[in-house]
Amino acid sequence: MLTYSLSECGKKPIYRYIYECIKNDILSGTIPSGEKLPSKRSLASNLEVAVITVENAYSMLEAEGYIYAVEKKGYYVAEDMKAMFTGGIKAAEGNPSIPAAPSKKVLITKKHPRFDEEESSDCAVDQKKTYKYDLTMSSAGKGSFPFDTWAKLSRRILLDKEETFTRAPENIGVYELRSAIADYLYEAKGISVGKANIIIGPGTEYLHHILIQLLGRNSFTAVEDPGYRNVGRIYEANGVRVIHVPVDQEGMRTDKLPTKGTKLVHVSPSHHFPLGCVMPVSRRQKLLEWADQCDAYVIEDDYDSELRSDGRPITPLYMMDRERVIYMNTFTRTLSPSVRIAYMVLPEKLMSMYNEKLIFYSGTVSGFEQYTLAAFIKEGYYERHIRRMRNLGRKKRSIFLETLKASNLGKYVSFSEDKAGLYMIMETSEKIFQKKFRKILDEKSVKITQLGLYCYNSTPRFERRFLLCYGNLEERDMEKVIGIIEEAVKQSVKHGK
Amino acid sequence: MLTYSLSECGKKPIYRYIYECIKNDILSGTIPSGEKLPSKRSLASNLEVAVITVENAYSMLEAEGYIYAVEKKGYYVAEDMKAMFTGGIKAAEGNPSIPAAPSKKVLITKKHPRFDEEESSDCAVDQKKTYKYDLTMSSAGKGSFPFDTWAKLSRRILLDKEETFTRAPENIGVYELRSAIADYLYEAKGISVGKANIIIGPGTEYLHHILIQLLGRNSFTAVEDPGYRNVGRIYEANGVRVIHVPVDQEGMRTDKLPTKGTKLVHVSPSHHFPLGCVMPVSRRQKLLEWADQCDAYVIEDDYDSELRSDGRPITPLYMMDRERVIYMNTFTRTLSPSVRIAYMVLPEKLMSMYNEKLIFYSGTVSGFEQYTLAAFIKEGYYERHIRRMRNLGRKKRSIFLETLKASNLGKYVSFSEDKAGLYMIMETSEKIFQKKFRKILDEKSVKITQLGLYCYNSTPRFERRFLLCYGNLEERDMEKVIGIIEEAVKQSVKHGK
Repeated sequence: MLTYSLSECGKKPIYRYIYECIKNDILSGTIPSGEKLPSKRSLASNLEVAVITVENAYSMLEAEGYIYAVEKKGYYVAEDMKAMFTGGIKAAEGNPSIPAAPSKKVLITKKHPRFDEEESSDCAVDQKKTYKYDLTMSSAGKGSFPFDTWAKLSRRILLDKEETFTRAPENIGVYELRSAIADYLYEAKGISVGKANIIIGPGTEYLHHILIQLLGRNSFTAVEDPGYRNVGRIYEANGVRVIHVPVDQEGMRTDKLPTKGTKLVHVSPSHHFPLGCVMPVSRRQKLLEWADQCDAYVIEDDYDSELRSDGRPITPLYMMDRERVIYMNTFTRTLSPSVRIAYMVLPEKLMSMYNEKLIFYSGTVSGFEQYTLAAFIKEGYYERHIRRMRNLGRKKRSIFLETLKASNLGKYVSFSEDKAGLYMIMETSEKIFQKKFRKILDEKSVKITQLGLYCYNSTPRFERRFLLCYGNLEERDMEKVIGIIEEAVKQSVKHGK
Repeated sequence: MLTYSLSECGKKPIYRYIYECIKNDILSGTIPSGEKLPSKRSLASNLEVAVITVENAYSMLEAEGYIYAVEKKGYYVAEDMKAMFTGGIKAAEGNPSIPAAPSKKVLITKKHPRFDEEESSDCAVDQKKTYKYDLTMSSAGKGSFPFDTWAKLSRRILLDKEETFTRAPENIGVYELRSAIADYLYEAKGISVGKANIIIGPGTEYLHHILIQLLGRNSFTAVEDPGYRNVGRIYEANGVRVIHVPVDQEGMRTDKLPTKGTKLVHVSPSHHFPLGCVMPVSRRQKLLEWADQCDAYVIEDDYDSELRSDGRPITPLYMMDRERVIYMNTFTRTLSPSVRIAYMVLPEKLMSMYNEKLIFYSGTVSGFEQYTLAAFIKEGYYERHIRRMRNLGRKKRSIFLETLKASNLGKYVSFSEDKAGLYMIMETSEKIFQKKFRKILDEKSVKITQLGLYCYNSTPRFERRFLLCYGNLEERDMEKVIGIIEEAVKQSVKHGK
């Protein structure tokens, strides 16, 4: 039976401490590949903790690919976990012990109309028009911004910190905010970062600009395809050549990365958008090996790991290599799209380059808002807000699912979803008139995006899939909106019934 | 006698309307070159306005080089004013009718120690140390931020605009702020700009990043030497080759601009830093002709035209060519170094390029602060603040001058100043021990900068000149600080008294 001394746990949550102990034992070979772990109940009893604590630890280990579950049997240690950290890697692809990304359950499947591919160039949504029901933005929805608390802290900062208005904020960000972020990262994700290695910017886009200035323009940057198209656009707009690397259910396909000339790669290992997959530890390890071979840096875009509705956040890739991984995150997404604050943690070498080459830059985020956010984090409001968002998200998800099941939309399309992010992917295989479909939705002021729009190299399948982000949708509107989509699909069927 | 109908003046201040009428008459040739203008008193009486109103109009025309003053005689129209706008330009250099930059009066001159040039590499000030008396930053000083008003408006925005926290600010800036800026530019500077051509950023540095992305990296950018060194650094950090063009008393020497390959030039025509000169209209016209020939854009950095203590702001270069000039300004300087808001006005062609290539970017300034600033401008607080700053500056300047005259510092150095900006240039011609000088200042926590630090190609003379920015200095500290500088100079003299 596994036994760990919880007295060494320190400030960490117990579940995280248990997770780390088991992970270390797996990596060191103390618990060998294929070994069955004790049941949650028996380990909990042995360590004198609650079953839910062990459950949380096991689910983190599973999500990250260290262990896998066999139904009605229990948890087993995945293959090659030790080997990965000592050099000799076997081909892990197709290895059944490496879990795939959180499985996409097909919820409703019947016969499907298919979009006419000839029309697919017409699928771009009018960017300027304002839609009443906007299902294209993955957001937490209205009313989620902790406005009263924010206003209270703002007033206090205005009263207490008058002198901060007389001086420029430090160019990498005010000390109080960097310190609050470092503490938060340690307590919520178990990673310790240097306060002096954190750079605050008015959005991740600006942080990419800094990386471009540090790494120059003579090498390639690799991005996920599909993925957030803007990342590639930023690099291209700045004269950096971009390689679009395909994504499978384990995230970026490292076997498709070029073997030289690439100095930077952008991934979202904790939750890929829009496919939703989590990169398992085997793939993570391959990515870092590739980075070592190419002397490249990996940007870990952890943009919404906070909002996973199934519990604990995935451990950042950053934990596995502090010299190769640039950890990047934003408050814009979890807090408010109006608060423009993002940050990255630079490896020591890049931070030295920054201090040498780019220290002349001024700060880019208002001192006032930096102090407000620092207080918001330090006083525990941020963690409380995140918990509240997760609960709201879970509730919204179950209502959306209920409404969907009660509708007839399932007659025409199928749905899949993953455990993070308030969205589903709707797929159709029958042909429908794309233009007509758009026109009906437009008339009813409903905006949805085709998955193909997130692809650089799109395939017909991506063009038959649509993103339904219901985070912004009020619960009372769900039935109506699903009805409109149903009607639009029905009327646009090409050779239909 | 000049007669203009003041009923057509509209919303503009009368002095500006008179200024415009006379300027137009000069440019159209209605008032020919060499013509004497009516005396201020008689024109005021004729137009039934106050003498100060005509005085303001004349001083703007003079500062911009349309007219020149002959002592005890009056004002005359400068040469070639019409020709410049119809194509045929004579060499204006050495033409006595074109006024030089505001003259630098030597206030106190005796015998001067000179800094040892061998030591000059050691003159960089320790960036990290905090100094009690920081004379390196040209700022309005403590207590100048209208804190109570800002706090009041902030509270109101927090109460009224809760919904703004639920959406991202427009990427070029929120409409309310762009609209407030457009109105302000019209009322305070008489220029009308399109709201849709204004881009808001978290500092001018970010705005330069946008220009680099629009204009690419295959051409040169020309900057002033001396000047704000960071402008060149930004372009170089982004892979753009920079040409450092010398500055004389009329601003950037257009005859030193390369005839091809340069697509962008950065100037501060209203007030050069650190030399303080205003670019006269003849030089402005040459600059724009050069831009036309090279198909280049001119960035007009109007960073502190608001704070001229001698009255009216200089008319922006933007007025002379809306297709070539990018008008750029910041609130960080006039308001607070903690408020990170700057803007630029793009010519139509560049704005179209932005909307085509870069519209994917997110906004970079917090919506909350944009709304607060918009209210601050719209409700007249900004103009009031600027007036107050100017008055404070005038007062501070006269006290600093008094204190200087009462001291013995003038035994060792000479001073010059210009009409804008709260700083003086201290110059020495005798040799002194540079290291010793620094050490004494450091020990007493006084920070001053050598002018050579603002040069790309420095000359020994620039290294003997120091900037004393007294805007941040409390009046009660002035005597003490001047005493410390005096002591430092005295003790560092190389070959005795």
